[in-house]
Amino acid sequence: MTNLANLRIVLDHTSHPGNIGAAARAMKTMSIETLSLVAPKSFPDSVAYARASGATDVLDEAEIHTTLSSALEPCHRIFATSARSRHLSLPVLDAHEAGKAITSALQQGQQVAVVFGNEQHGLSNADIQHCHQHIIIPTNPVYGSLNLGSAVQIVCYEIFQHICAPVEPATTAPAPYIEQERLYHHVVDMLKAIDYLHPQRSAKLSQKLKVILQQYPLTQEQIHIIRGVLTQIEKRTQQDHHA
Amino acid sequence: MTNLANLRIVLDHTSHPGNIGAAARAMKTMSIETLSLVAPKSFPDSVAYARASGATDVLDEAEIHTTLSSALEPCHRIFATSARSRHLSLPVLDAHEAGKAITSALQQGQQVAVVFGNEQHGLSNADIQHCHQHIIIPTNPVYGSLNLGSAVQIVCYEIFQHICAPVEPATTAPAPYIEQERLYHHVVDMLKAIDYLHPQRSAKLSQKLKVILQQYPLTQEQIHIIRGVLTQIEKRTQQDHHA
Repeated sequence: MTNLANLRIVLDHTSHPGNIGAAARAMKTMSIETLSLVAPKSFPDSVAYARASGATDVLDEAEIHTTLSSALEPCHRIFATSARSRHLSLPVLDAHEAGKAITSALQQGQQVAVVFGNEQHGLSNADIQHCHQHIIIPTNPVYGSLNLGSAVQIVCYEIFQHICAPVEPATTAPAPYIEQERLYHHVVDMLKAIDYLHPQRSAKLSQKLKVILQQYPLTQEQIHIIRGVLTQIEKRTQQDHHA
Repeated sequence: MTNLANLRIVLDHTSHPGNIGAAARAMKTMSIETLSLVAPKSFPDSVAYARASGATDVLDEAEIHTTLSSALEPCHRIFATSARSRHLSLPVLDAHEAGKAITSALQQGQQVAVVFGNEQHGLSNADIQHCHQHIIIPTNPVYGSLNLGSAVQIVCYEIFQHICAPVEPATTAPAPYIEQERLYHHVVDMLKAIDYLHPQRSAKLSQKLKVILQQYPLTQEQIHIIRGVLTQIEKRTQQDHHA
């Protein structure tokens, strides 16, 4: 069963409250009602309520977070949206394929987030590193400037269109975001233990390793196995230091 | 060849100039630039221009008509949009099917119109009688109130998806099988170096690690990064053996 309550739309650093209202209305027309706001410039705001029309209940129940990572904590699958692909590339889906992938994750009981960046700047590379996949909405190559509410509308529309599609067989569920974060930090600790993080290359290397880890939905058991190996590497290295 | 200049979006008796601007922007993001306005309540209007953002050229070139039939005069195929089907039923297409049908009419060199009614009342039965087919955008059965700009966005999006070739091909290509094999053997060597492969658990653990590695299409660069880390682990461990 597809449970749309497990899907949240996350608006990160939205500048214009009108766009928050438009997004709420766009969501509700497609039966999606869980909204998370990360550091909105102005919320609650009467402009948002006016633009939400009959979807003010979505605004009433919106969660407000100060950081993107706190908004994403319970999520198993996280999708970033943006107008263009970035250099540091996650796997890319177009909006239609994304509708299918999101529906399928929901059918497996996963918590899913779709993240939309600020109107002017979109998502930063740091934001995108929290995400597993990248949704591109194909647009006019000479004018791709979708309004934020429109982008939310298209993605929610595509998800809603897939809701009635037949169920796909469940694979094993990926571990929640928090476990993936712990794994990443464990990897970084291990790299320090083996003296592999030089100041010159640390940032870029950590970033690339994070992409490798987040790109793929590791299960809880797989994370457990990898962390067992990491612990053993650290132990062997420490022993040697003491030797 | 599909000529999008033969497609016009017709807004009939629009009340809010902001929605005209939003529609222009929605159209242009999907490469659709011919707009006809039938008896707009207020146009030209600075609110429309503000909401159009980078699509003010669409407003500059909009045709203004006093009646729907004059706006439709040159058209071969006319599609009516509305939230719900009417008693006076035309053949109904959903937005996705409509995108396909419209593209196919354009490919045959036809002039095509898609008509959107007033924000409050939609299209009247009299209006709908000018049209050949009815486009329904599937929505939440308890709240189907799409904003006019959003409805234009979804229909234009569906048309554009049928016109442009599939979105950019999948990111970076995965490394060939042989590189994946080498990575796996390198992992096994490292596990031996850190004394982690006990006879009792070796087979099962190696198998599970192989699944993790093969499950995901790592790129050549990602494999290179991981093998760099593995080499460093081995080096640190060997140093210690010799120490």
